[in-house]
Amino acid sequence: MKELITPCLTPFLPNGDVDFPALTSLVKKLDESGVTGIFPLGSTGVFPWLTLEEKKEIMRCVRNNTDKPVYCGVGSTSIAESIQLSVFAEDCGCEFAVLTPPYYMPPDEEGMKEFLLGVMGKSNVNFFLYNIPQFTGSRIQPALLDELIQAVPNLSGIKDSSGDMRYFSRLVSLRKDNFRVLQGQDDLLLPSLAVGGDGGVCGLSNFSDSAVRILESFLAGDVPKAAEINEHTILPLMDALNSSNFPSGYYYAYYLINRLKGGYRPPMHAPPEESAAKIRESVKSLVLSK
Amino acid sequence: MKELITPCLTPFLPNGDVDFPALTSLVKKLDESGVTGIFPLGSTGVFPWLTLEEKKEIMRCVRNNTDKPVYCGVGSTSIAESIQLSVFAEDCGCEFAVLTPPYYMPPDEEGMKEFLLGVMGKSNVNFFLYNIPQFTGSRIQPALLDELIQAVPNLSGIKDSSGDMRYFSRLVSLRKDNFRVLQGQDDLLLPSLAVGGDGGVCGLSNFSDSAVRILESFLAGDVPKAAEINEHTILPLMDALNSSNFPSGYYYAYYLINRLKGGYRPPMHAPPEESAAKIRESVKSLVLSK
Amino acid sequence: MKELITPCLTPFLPNGDVDFPALTSLVKKLDESGVTGIFPLGSTGVFPWLTLEEKKEIMRCVRNNTDKPVYCGVGSTSIAESIQLSVFAEDCGCEFAVLTPPYYMPPDEEGMKEFLLGVMGKSNVNFFLYNIPQFTGSRIQPALLDELIQAVPNLSGIKDSSGDMRYFSRLVSLRKDNFRVLQGQDDLLLPSLAVGGDGGVCGLSNFSDSAVRILESFLAGDVPKAAEINEHTILPLMDALNSSNFPSGYYYAYYLINRLKGGYRPPMHAPPEESAAKIRESVKSLVLSK
Amino acid sequence: MKELITPCLTPFLPNGDVDFPALTSLVKKLDESGVTGIFPLGSTGVFPWLTLEEKKEIMRCVRNNTDKPVYCGVGSTSIAESIQLSVFAEDCGCEFAVLTPPYYMPPDEEGMKEFLLGVMGKSNVNFFLYNIPQFTGSRIQPALLDELIQAVPNLSGIKDSSGDMRYFSRLVSLRKDNFRVLQGQDDLLLPSLAVGGDGGVCGLSNFSDSAVRILESFLAGDVPKAAEINEHTILPLMDALNSSNFPSGYYYAYYLINRLKGGYRPPMHAPPEESAAKIRESVKSLVLSK
Repeated sequence: MKELITPCLTPFLPNGDVDFPALTSLVKKLDESGVTGIFPLGSTGVFPWLTLEEKKEIMRCVRNNTDKPVYCGVGSTSIAESIQLSVFAEDCGCEFAVLTPPYYMPPDEEGMKEFLLGVMGKSNVNFFLYNIPQFTGSRIQPALLDELIQAVPNLSGIKDSSGDMRYFSRLVSLRKDNFRVLQGQDDLLLPSLAVGGDGGVCGLSNFSDSAVRILESFLAGDVPKAAEINEHTILPLMDALNSSNFPSGYYYAYYLINRLKGGYRPPMHAPPEESAAKIRESVKSLVLSK
Repeated sequence: MKELITPCLTPFLPNGDVDFPALTSLVKKLDESGVTGIFPLGSTGVFPWLTLEEKKEIMRCVRNNTDKPVYCGVGSTSIAESIQLSVFAEDCGCEFAVLTPPYYMPPDEEGMKEFLLGVMGKSNVNFFLYNIPQFTGSRIQPALLDELIQAVPNLSGIKDSSGDMRYFSRLVSLRKDNFRVLQGQDDLLLPSLAVGGDGGVCGLSNFSDSAVRILESFLAGDVPKAAEINEHTILPLMDALNSSNFPSGYYYAYYLINRLKGGYRPPMHAPPEESAAKIRESVKSLVLSK
Repeated sequence: MKELITPCLTPFLPNGDVDFPALTSLVKKLDESGVTGIFPLGSTGVFPWLTLEEKKEIMRCVRNNTDKPVYCGVGSTSIAESIQLSVFAEDCGCEFAVLTPPYYMPPDEEGMKEFLLGVMGKSNVNFFLYNIPQFTGSRIQPALLDELIQAVPNLSGIKDSSGDMRYFSRLVSLRKDNFRVLQGQDDLLLPSLAVGGDGGVCGLSNFSDSAVRILESFLAGDVPKAAEINEHTILPLMDALNSSNFPSGYYYAYYLINRLKGGYRPPMHAPPEESAAKIRESVKSLVLSK
Repeated sequence: MKELITPCLTPFLPNGDVDFPALTSLVKKLDESGVTGIFPLGSTGVFPWLTLEEKKEIMRCVRNNTDKPVYCGVGSTSIAESIQLSVFAEDCGCEFAVLTPPYYMPPDEEGMKEFLLGVMGKSNVNFFLYNIPQFTGSRIQPALLDELIQAVPNLSGIKDSSGDMRYFSRLVSLRKDNFRVLQGQDDLLLPSLAVGGDGGVCGLSNFSDSAVRILESFLAGDVPKAAEINEHTILPLMDALNSSNFPSGYYYAYYLINRLKGGYRPPMHAPPEESAAKIRESVKSLVLSK
């Protein structure tokens, strides 16, 4: 079975506070959509811009509004805080905790291993690792991943958002029955499925069914159809959204489509007008089709 | 129709001179293989380590020993030399000249455009562009490529060796009837076909039919079979070869399989023993199956 | 007047807890040394590996054990937490709060500005900015700094740890009477003084007086003497310490010199033996001279 | 004795041909200026954009028009061509050949060593190495340099244009009586002198005496005066010139000051107007003072 998971946004009010009613509504909508799981507190959910208390409240809110599996981000630079979030995820019934290597000062391989083992050993929740070297400054090397798979019974998979398909292919060759390898970039979902990946965590699925349709076409054996959706829907949409500093374009599009006033927690801010215009144009078809 | 082109090696004698008998033999073997074209004087052919006269002699040698289309590298930091090589390629009957943007000091976009237009305007041969930013220090931006496609009637395609599938996907969305987009990394051939690319330029095809078999499986609609060849043949082979500084592992493997003493032109040199042992192990099945 | 500030370590017990008695002792020693200020909760103090409560307790401990100016790190990815730490720094009597741009997802310039202004507008403590792009992923551009200097009356300086002397020189050309530009790399202290910088924040000053002696020689007009200390004391010491992943070498040396058992908070861990041997050798003269 | 060497431009005619009368005039002017040597065929002289024949003619032209030491660039990706240029440099009486590691595909350390030794062993001219990793893709490591200094009697020095002062300091600690370490970035000349470097190769000295004046102030013991020239003359001038893609700003300024029509060899081209305006403004004082 292949996965298509939504890294859900953290909606904000115009004053920068978390908008829990909007989050509730988003989660309920996702619960009825074609996605197979919901992932709060990822990068798209701007987890580092949030306080510990906000993170817990968001976790509870998502858990309480869906029956789908919840993959909850527990990343932090503090090992104590990552442990606390993992235990909390387990306690409130999330199926998976998604763990980022520590960022700011990049650890060496031994330090990364100690940190990851230190967190995973302190709770019984199932874990996903989250590789995103462009933000953490370090990469989970295939050899280390292999070692962790052997050593940690509750390690269930990895989400790779590096954008590096050559690296992703090496991860795929490490997968096991109970260990899945997911792609974190929407525009690499199709290539990732082609090389044997287990699915994707797709930011566009917050407001578009394009990734779900790619997966369906691929599973139906229709690669050209999947390629067509990739080329004509995913690529232009992503290019418009990413014309603004990540992930502000996703927030702008989401607010627009859901007719929310919406706000931005600094350092995130509203896209500059040139980018905003591109995004409005690109989501027109999505808004109309709602 | 999809392409599978071999970026052919430049065999050397132990003293570092070009080994033309070995090159002749290699080209004849490729001519009888499943590949659709031969590309001398690419990065795998270590074109920058060669003199102008050697480049011309290699071009002639390849042209004279195959009936398949010849894609001949004409890259140089000197515009005069790139023009001279293109004219020579045309005169000796190569179907395509493959042009690299100038390297060493990375040009800005306007400078890259002037250089490329300056070369392509001086001969009637058909051109491929060659994007390999890890070596040239600059990338052919999709917007510039689009402009060049419109402006240059004899521009027939691009080979992208950046390793960046997200970029490659954007190139694919620019392709036309007479403009093809080829993947330059063997381990990205399958994902590239999946998103609609026109084929690959695959270094392993100097001594392995794995890339050809991936293409055949893909064209037959058997993506899982292609994925299996990718995972179990291409990935381990590439990882072994690239354990030595590129492209020395390819030369070592080629010499081994073809029972040649072989040499290396500085700064290329024989792989260190640890890497050599990996390569010997990884090509064992290839040698046995010959 | 030139500054020489110590970015003080956060000593740990073998079990990974903060060792407050050791910190107290370190601060008292620095208070009696030739340095002009103490900077807890910088990168050398591994601030991201600590919890919010630990940060506050460290701040209090440093403040209570020195009469020298305290420059206290208030960096966080959460604007709320950076504000909270700044207010706390003000309340407990620190002279300066040292503010890092948000890390993990690199902000664009507008977002960085909003974040920095948002924090600096919420307390009356004097601020230093802290530029360390190798860890934060983004650089405080000279144009933005210039704008902030004009706009923020309580902005007193910047510490640049980028290691980029060309950039540092540009910052120096922006300095004002009440705005100082400090170098964050020990081995760039002397060049920084030469181009007009206001001093340095020097990690080695946790256990060596070499940086203080460079400053004294420079102020006495003896550049060759300063160059000699730089070449024969600073460089070999730094190279030994940095043979282990930053900043573990500093901790190992500190524990050794102060005869502490000492521990490491993950992802930091004890240097591997090869590096540890280098460090032991390099600090021999320091230990003997104590 | 400290050195101040001019990496001289290669003037072009509007049609892109080398302008030998202008080159002759430039060299004669430098011969009468305060610089201690002339370095044709460096990066500022756009050596990679030239043909082999042009390089030889330029070498002869410079040699014939100055009595100062000539440091002649002999860089190439082809070892045969670098050898040929070194021998030519020796034959036409240049004091030094300046050798770049091979570029395009970055060699590993062993390959770089074989290439450099292979060239330096084939002529009796004295050699300088030229470290410029931003263009060659690889760095001459201090350990390799140390090994080469021991092994090659005719190795006289290194020019470091990396812009990395921390690395430069390590090179300085390797210098010997007959081995000099020169800074290749004008805005790092002063810091380099401060840490014990032997001088600089300064592009601005093609048309400005600012670098010479910094050296004179430093040698006279007046560091603040040197810092003032650095801050108020070198930095604004470099920032204006580098607002256009390197090294086109240097050419534009040179043509302007010398009232030449002047041209650009692709991929170099005239600065865009916004940059050109900045350069005109910045060189006004230089033009008036001529």
